[in-house]
Amino acid sequence: MFKTVEWKQSGVVMIDQRLLPEKEVYRTYRDHRGVARAIRDMVVRGAPAIGVAAAMGVALGARKIKSKDIASFKKEFGSITRLLASTRPTAVNLFWAISRMSRIVEDNAGKTATELKKKLIAEAIDIYREDIEMNRLMGKYGSDLLKSGSTVLTHCNAGALATAGYGTALGVIRGAVEAGKEIKVFADETRPFLQGARLTAWELKKDNIDVTLITDNMAGHMMQKGLIHAVIVGADRIAANGDVANKIGTYTVALLAREHGIPFYVAAPTSTIDMNILHGDDIPIEERDSREVTHLKGRRIAPQGINVKNPAFDVTPSRLVTAIITEKGIVKRPYGKNLKGLFDKKRKVR
Amino acid sequence: MFKTVEWKQSGVVMIDQRLLPEKEVYRTYRDHRGVARAIRDMVVRGAPAIGVAAAMGVALGARKIKSKDIASFKKEFGSITRLLASTRPTAVNLFWAISRMSRIVEDNAGKTATELKKKLIAEAIDIYREDIEMNRLMGKYGSDLLKSGSTVLTHCNAGALATAGYGTALGVIRGAVEAGKEIKVFADETRPFLQGARLTAWELKKDNIDVTLITDNMAGHMMQKGLIHAVIVGADRIAANGDVANKIGTYTVALLAREHGIPFYVAAPTSTIDMNILHGDDIPIEERDSREVTHLKGRRIAPQGINVKNPAFDVTPSRLVTAIITEKGIVKRPYGKNLKGLFDKKRKVR
Repeated sequence: MFKTVEWKQSGVVMIDQRLLPEKEVYRTYRDHRGVARAIRDMVVRGAPAIGVAAAMGVALGARKIKSKDIASFKKEFGSITRLLASTRPTAVNLFWAISRMSRIVEDNAGKTATELKKKLIAEAIDIYREDIEMNRLMGKYGSDLLKSGSTVLTHCNAGALATAGYGTALGVIRGAVEAGKEIKVFADETRPFLQGARLTAWELKKDNIDVTLITDNMAGHMMQKGLIHAVIVGADRIAANGDVANKIGTYTVALLAREHGIPFYVAAPTSTIDMNILHGDDIPIEERDSREVTHLKGRRIAPQGINVKNPAFDVTPSRLVTAIITEKGIVKRPYGKNLKGLFDKKRKVR
Repeated sequence: MFKTVEWKQSGVVMIDQRLLPEKEVYRTYRDHRGVARAIRDMVVRGAPAIGVAAAMGVALGARKIKSKDIASFKKEFGSITRLLASTRPTAVNLFWAISRMSRIVEDNAGKTATELKKKLIAEAIDIYREDIEMNRLMGKYGSDLLKSGSTVLTHCNAGALATAGYGTALGVIRGAVEAGKEIKVFADETRPFLQGARLTAWELKKDNIDVTLITDNMAGHMMQKGLIHAVIVGADRIAANGDVANKIGTYTVALLAREHGIPFYVAAPTSTIDMNILHGDDIPIEERDSREVTHLKGRRIAPQGINVKNPAFDVTPSRLVTAIITEKGIVKRPYGKNLKGLFDKKRKVR
């Protein structure tokens, strides 16, 4: 089985997702600058995987700091975290992971630089391990929502490739399959980056899960024909009111699901929930290079000299979301109250 | 300016739409078999253009019949029309054009083979000329529906390239621009064949109409942001109840338009209306080769060994259609009654 991102003594190793499914190439990044570039260029993508990679990038950067003086260590550490935080604006897991790493430095005032470096590496590896564990929990909780014999539509890739392993949306599908249910998957190809065609289809095929590829604009027709029974997607950031920022096109899928009476589920760890953002409209939406739309594998597919838009995400209002599957349990309406409850340590959601 | 399809003494000349926008290549077809192949392989596409090409294909085929005996002429003529009718199942203009050509043979019982050949060529050229004329009328009627300063979303290509010239949906946009209105266009790229990216963007750019390319899954986001004020698409077949078969993804765009209170217009000549089909569910939907989804410009973009669906069209229920723009005027609800009225020669719609 492949590994999306991994900490090794030599550096952070990532599978280059731009080259899948044709080539399975692993790249080793030896400093935080390389990791930042890999995140920006989408060698690694998917909110949880970005978080893990960024944490490892911070650890790599910290490991290379030469100064033993804590003040200068902190200064260099600050520039490392700022660089990594500048890579992509929408996935909140990036900022969540970086702030967890920063807290290690803040909370260990008396420690030496060498001790801090060790703790930072350990924290990055913890973030990695916890991510897999959270995905397995989501898979366990979420699988109850899927009936055996059903066909599930997913958009983009919220699988093992979008996380440290197992996946969020695809983790729920894997959980249902592991529970002995018969599940088929329809994968939207997900233009412009083709995460569905290239990544979701690839990893489900590897797991022998029945997958049917469609172009994004076919989902409505498949629902009209009664071929889809549930939708599951991941998330890049969930606002405190339950609005979900996810890969461009998710909003349209959610609207189609409501029109056809099909449940629309979002699977995301609590690290994706941003309680500081009250409403989805306030989530920053990344606009990426127009070449992602006008070119494919380096070849032009549109005329020159036209305007192009390329927002990487959209916002699905919480009213279209049937439930949010987290590692702490399944959250339903009212989202404002119930999402807040997840962060109240005394309460158990499930 | 380019010509989509043209009758010349040497044969039927068509611009090869598979190669646009990179290359502007014109191909000459000297017999009906070549024209049939060109329709099937989408050298020419778009319901009205398919109709014109088929009519010219019939004329080409008839011109080559050697027998002077009317019985054998008719037999050969029958096999020509059957071949052309087998090329694509959804666009009704194909069958409409072929049956107009067949009527020439049926209605001219006393004529010689030579006379019939002349009449068939004249009829094909008439169908071509009438198509352009109908588009100009649709442009005139439809332009009243568009306000100056508005941005119009279109899906697929219902332009000069989809017709003998001027276009249906893009004809309405051209009509509005010619009437002095300021109109901007958003073009869905329209996977898998990319008619929006390759053809709509190309022909609007040639006309200096402001065009912005988006992937299909971005339309919902653009509507959420208030950037789209109207939607206009063409049609491949309209049922008697007003249900519209058009390029895959049209249904989703119509649903998005309704959700955002945006008018959704269909521009199509009356030759696209099939009064023999009562309900959209009964319109045959072509399923095309899966390679159109898994490959782009000959290069694979999805893993091997997965399932793929590739329906070329979907059906938009008439309840989502604000108005149908025809060469006889604008048709609104109730479509059952008002579409029937178009074919009642004594009544004037407008």
